[in-house]
Amino acid sequence: MKKVRIGLVGTGYIGRCHAIAYAQAPTLFPLKGELHLEYLAEINQELAEKKAKEFGFARATGDWIELVADPNVDVVDICTPNFLHKEIALAAIANGKHVYSEKPLALTAADAKEMVEAAKKAGVKTLVGFNYMKNPTSQLAREIIKNGEIGDVVHFYGTHNEDYLASPNTPIDWHSYRSKAGLGTLGDLAAHIVNMAHYLVGEEITSVVGDMQTVITERPNPNNLSEKVKVENEDQATAMVRFANGVMGTIESSRIACGRKMGLTYVVTGTKGTLTYTQERMAELKLYLHDEDKSRQGFKTILVGPEHPDYAAFCVSAGHGIGFNDQKSVEIRDLVNGIAADDRMWPDFEEGYRVSRVLEAIAKSAEEKRWVDVKEI
Amino acid sequence: MKKVRIGLVGTGYIGRCHAIAYAQAPTLFPLKGELHLEYLAEINQELAEKKAKEFGFARATGDWIELVADPNVDVVDICTPNFLHKEIALAAIANGKHVYSEKPLALTAADAKEMVEAAKKAGVKTLVGFNYMKNPTSQLAREIIKNGEIGDVVHFYGTHNEDYLASPNTPIDWHSYRSKAGLGTLGDLAAHIVNMAHYLVGEEITSVVGDMQTVITERPNPNNLSEKVKVENEDQATAMVRFANGVMGTIESSRIACGRKMGLTYVVTGTKGTLTYTQERMAELKLYLHDEDKSRQGFKTILVGPEHPDYAAFCVSAGHGIGFNDQKSVEIRDLVNGIAADDRMWPDFEEGYRVSRVLEAIAKSAEEKRWVDVKEI
Amino acid sequence: MKKVRIGLVGTGYIGRCHAIAYAQAPTLFPLKGELHLEYLAEINQELAEKKAKEFGFARATGDWIELVADPNVDVVDICTPNFLHKEIALAAIANGKHVYSEKPLALTAADAKEMVEAAKKAGVKTLVGFNYMKNPTSQLAREIIKNGEIGDVVHFYGTHNEDYLASPNTPIDWHSYRSKAGLGTLGDLAAHIVNMAHYLVGEEITSVVGDMQTVITERPNPNNLSEKVKVENEDQATAMVRFANGVMGTIESSRIACGRKMGLTYVVTGTKGTLTYTQERMAELKLYLHDEDKSRQGFKTILVGPEHPDYAAFCVSAGHGIGFNDQKSVEIRDLVNGIAADDRMWPDFEEGYRVSRVLEAIAKSAEEKRWVDVKEI
Amino acid sequence: MKKVRIGLVGTGYIGRCHAIAYAQAPTLFPLKGELHLEYLAEINQELAEKKAKEFGFARATGDWIELVADPNVDVVDICTPNFLHKEIALAAIANGKHVYSEKPLALTAADAKEMVEAAKKAGVKTLVGFNYMKNPTSQLAREIIKNGEIGDVVHFYGTHNEDYLASPNTPIDWHSYRSKAGLGTLGDLAAHIVNMAHYLVGEEITSVVGDMQTVITERPNPNNLSEKVKVENEDQATAMVRFANGVMGTIESSRIACGRKMGLTYVVTGTKGTLTYTQERMAELKLYLHDEDKSRQGFKTILVGPEHPDYAAFCVSAGHGIGFNDQKSVEIRDLVNGIAADDRMWPDFEEGYRVSRVLEAIAKSAEEKRWVDVKEI
Repeated sequence: MKKVRIGLVGTGYIGRCHAIAYAQAPTLFPLKGELHLEYLAEINQELAEKKAKEFGFARATGDWIELVADPNVDVVDICTPNFLHKEIALAAIANGKHVYSEKPLALTAADAKEMVEAAKKAGVKTLVGFNYMKNPTSQLAREIIKNGEIGDVVHFYGTHNEDYLASPNTPIDWHSYRSKAGLGTLGDLAAHIVNMAHYLVGEEITSVVGDMQTVITERPNPNNLSEKVKVENEDQATAMVRFANGVMGTIESSRIACGRKMGLTYVVTGTKGTLTYTQERMAELKLYLHDEDKSRQGFKTILVGPEHPDYAAFCVSAGHGIGFNDQKSVEIRDLVNGIAADDRMWPDFEEGYRVSRVLEAIAKSAEEKRWVDVKEI
Repeated sequence: MKKVRIGLVGTGYIGRCHAIAYAQAPTLFPLKGELHLEYLAEINQELAEKKAKEFGFARATGDWIELVADPNVDVVDICTPNFLHKEIALAAIANGKHVYSEKPLALTAADAKEMVEAAKKAGVKTLVGFNYMKNPTSQLAREIIKNGEIGDVVHFYGTHNEDYLASPNTPIDWHSYRSKAGLGTLGDLAAHIVNMAHYLVGEEITSVVGDMQTVITERPNPNNLSEKVKVENEDQATAMVRFANGVMGTIESSRIACGRKMGLTYVVTGTKGTLTYTQERMAELKLYLHDEDKSRQGFKTILVGPEHPDYAAFCVSAGHGIGFNDQKSVEIRDLVNGIAADDRMWPDFEEGYRVSRVLEAIAKSAEEKRWVDVKEI
Repeated sequence: MKKVRIGLVGTGYIGRCHAIAYAQAPTLFPLKGELHLEYLAEINQELAEKKAKEFGFARATGDWIELVADPNVDVVDICTPNFLHKEIALAAIANGKHVYSEKPLALTAADAKEMVEAAKKAGVKTLVGFNYMKNPTSQLAREIIKNGEIGDVVHFYGTHNEDYLASPNTPIDWHSYRSKAGLGTLGDLAAHIVNMAHYLVGEEITSVVGDMQTVITERPNPNNLSEKVKVENEDQATAMVRFANGVMGTIESSRIACGRKMGLTYVVTGTKGTLTYTQERMAELKLYLHDEDKSRQGFKTILVGPEHPDYAAFCVSAGHGIGFNDQKSVEIRDLVNGIAADDRMWPDFEEGYRVSRVLEAIAKSAEEKRWVDVKEI
Repeated sequence: MKKVRIGLVGTGYIGRCHAIAYAQAPTLFPLKGELHLEYLAEINQELAEKKAKEFGFARATGDWIELVADPNVDVVDICTPNFLHKEIALAAIANGKHVYSEKPLALTAADAKEMVEAAKKAGVKTLVGFNYMKNPTSQLAREIIKNGEIGDVVHFYGTHNEDYLASPNTPIDWHSYRSKAGLGTLGDLAAHIVNMAHYLVGEEITSVVGDMQTVITERPNPNNLSEKVKVENEDQATAMVRFANGVMGTIESSRIACGRKMGLTYVVTGTKGTLTYTQERMAELKLYLHDEDKSRQGFKTILVGPEHPDYAAFCVSAGHGIGFNDQKSVEIRDLVNGIAADDRMWPDFEEGYRVSRVLEAIAKSAEEKRWVDVKEI
């Protein structure tokens, strides 16, 4: 079996999730490649070694430049803050490595485009960490839509709301600087729901009109809490969108939405039925079918189970529950099988770029107070 | 005690709801006026008499002209299809009657304005049947917001979705003709959620950008089902709005939203908390407060009870339930006390006109694909 | 049309609910009799007159003895505290009146039996106010069960929990004295769920084993809060039961169940499906059918609507909501049609007696720590 | 660091869950011992080798006798069908191994007692796989109860219902034979909820009265579907229980409860509040506090997060979700830390035995139709 040797860059929040998924995946799935946790890079050798031990990687380095050039690395897995994605990805591609990057792909759509083109030219494979669409429950949603069970989609409503910056007393960090994060809630959260919209509706978003606001305009300096520093990007954003086939949609995103801990939600309305979902109850999907007897109509709560895509890898009994890291394990499966056996790897950089364009179109629209064609970006 | 003598015009769906509420209200509330069900008008004498008996009205007529001119009528209550609201209201006002009209106030904002001005000039009182804001649960929501319990409102999301026209086989009726209904789902359903937005946020909507679609473009002729007739107004509409104080909002409305039987919902997000509500569970409100201990945060489901506005009139035990007609009874209480004791009567024609302007601005915006200032209307 | 002239005794909590329902019912339903609010009795003339005016009754008396003997009264409606039910009912029956009594029918099963026999002998009709089974939603549940849609019932779980006595600081009132209330939570609350069990399962409970406790053993004297008075009956009770056909069931009841405002709930499990319900969401029923495709199984939330029993009287649109008093209006319809047109009136005194026997068997079983056959009572 | 070398016996449903958890645990937790997947036993060498490869175990054997005697095995992990638990455990103990066994500990309480005594005598550590109490959400429930946040517990209601045998067409397997499974739904499912009751209430169940039924009395022979074979143990069981401190409780369990996929639920009522939980929404807990302002009372839905026990190991953001296998990972952490660092390992065999006694008391009570003191067993 072909080896798939991982070089992981970054071990924070999401890097650790990758590590958990790498640990699980070979037991969960009959992988088509042999997964090796080969090399790990952090900001210095000491931290790198500590994390390599913790995450089960064979070797460690304090310099990611070494990692992307290492002959024993097949895939570079980028889990750094957003502003480093591009540089690392381009270096990895230049060394002929496949690239698995967290979202958002880059700070700007232009950067994302550059990455797509570099990957294409180098003939390497790419994958972006839009993990929520890997959840068996959302795969089931896609299956139901694709089957036509709710008829033709006529409306999509999606949110990704959280409240991690709801308190004005939370000190500023890189998320709130344009130079480090690019967009605010759009890049951090809305990226997921835009990708989900593409996935579920099966069509791209082609035009948008957006509105957005920075509600908390300044935050304490983490090094001197009595000093206030300017927040540079948006706290909340909404957009009305149209998909390529003319379907209407609405996207909402906020990082100050009190009470939303994992508020990725969607309502997909079709001519014959409706699906609703919230990531806070990630193991259930609600389905309504309009053609049922009028006296027995209603939203049905389907608990995800072994009859649904990829669930049986976790448990053979329905309703026993799926966790956050399990989604990442499905993503790792896709990565390994994509590299080793040429299975389809999606969402790739191309989709990452498409998502970036939509987000940038929303921001542009909000600034210019007009509808924007995504092709303008 | 001052008499409040009702002249009811129209006894269909909503007219019957008024009748139920008229019957209940004197037992529910210590009214400040003496309610008399004086006169009832329908399209012919026979039907009028039948309905007068059924609804407990003293007299009946097949001609509403007689009713609006009758010296024993104090209030004209208009429950006809939309296109007759204006004519009847103006005639009633001309006769010095107070007017209680169902929503939407008129087919166009211009008509609504005419009605407002006529009423003002004649010095009569007015009330519009936006009954959902009379629900004790939504009154509680308003109270929580007004108290500042969720801080400053930063976002409003509201819907009024139903599925009564979801099936393409449902024959056409007056709702789908511009000449009879004016707007489609905007006039029929969104009117309620726009009024609710004004009520809850405590600010008017001042600018909008809308999008809308007629999804089912033709429907069977009810007199010849094999023939198809053109649908003239929108099935679904969405708008991003700004309130006078700059707060962002989103309004969605659909009459083809499969599975939504009474999908008036709202999410009001503040700097310190969030409220959520759905009219399908009209006796409960969900409240989240961000300042609670982080390990004990969560949305609390409050069951409406005697501690909340107007509930005790129905039952002295919490959680025992409130029904659709109960909201109308609160409205009737407001009507009687408004006429008899000069209590505040709201939403009045002024608010009905404001709502019409917002709806028309949304429609105009959707057609012209641009943001529209409500003052343009 | 035959007149049905009501004599109402008692105007507290539940008497007022009756009054609201009397006011509504003729507008809601095409009654088969002419409802007259004839006579009202309270503890003195003054209060009686005040309430008669408020509730729309023609005449008033401070002495219920006069009411039960009045030639213009057809039905005596008993809304007094429990300990008076028997005396008033027997007097009414002795005068040849039909009797409509609130639950529990009497303080003891023996008393209830006496009432049943008296009514039978006198040939008068009887009705007991088990209003929850009149809710269209629970009528729908019965219909689904009767149709065999969930197969044969194999298990019934029912509760009636509330928290009105959860606080130990709530002063004692008649509910906690054996001489005034009889049983505690069993008589006050469990009566409803036992009746509901009979109604839904379509079989009587024939044997029981119970357990119960007085958790708060003393309460403040309302006239001297620093003094404590002994609570004489149970705060919480549970029973395992068997129905006549051998089906297993569990009944739970508590008046100190923190958080339960109207916690009448049931789960009816059948060989082919399951129904669940809570009175706190009285307009929805959850239905699961096991024979559906395994990948599309789930509990469906049915919103009660015009296709379901008696709902259309309130509203012709589904999901618009049913309130507490609406159930009583259905009961009033049954009363009027039962008296005027000999329609079936149920639950009658016979059923009230059956319920009392079950409750008393539970109490006996709890005291004697053994299974008790209901026939022992 | 001390090595903890695992010898796994059995690789079916639950054995695979253990394997997933073994793979995850070292990345999730800073374990106090060095986990080695040393040896794996299956019914033949071929299968053992296949599974060892799949699960990442170093060596394999077709004979568990070899495994329990192997000098390089520190812990024997028993994931076989129930009827083998005792024999393997005793053999392991005889070889001085620590034992980690799945539930129920044995077919009878007497057997369980024998195992407890053998382990005690040999001085080995034990752990039983009651994984549901390892869920951070249920740990939070325990913390809330222990803190006294809901006052003194006055009532416990718990279920473990599933529908895996709801269809009468499902062929018979070992679960339905007394010789292979011992009790039916009591042993298979109720074991979990009895353990959970002990854990949450913090007291043992000391007396019970039970009722039970085999609803589907025969099932198809899997080798000849047209032939029917007798089901030997119960499909559903209910018990009323008393805890050592006198608290009342009810336990319900069914393997034919249509619609319940993972129906472990509990309602813990205290003098000051109530907790409710369902394992089908394993990342949320509902908490009601009675002392809150009456107009703001309600059940609060707490999404489990990093402030709660053990959650942060999985994700540092609240509400991101916990899956079935994650509970097992917490159990593995307890196992490794228990063996390597002498941390408390619970539920141990003693608790497994206590649970068995309660279950057997319920069965005995159901047969003898009387209350049974758990000490009788």
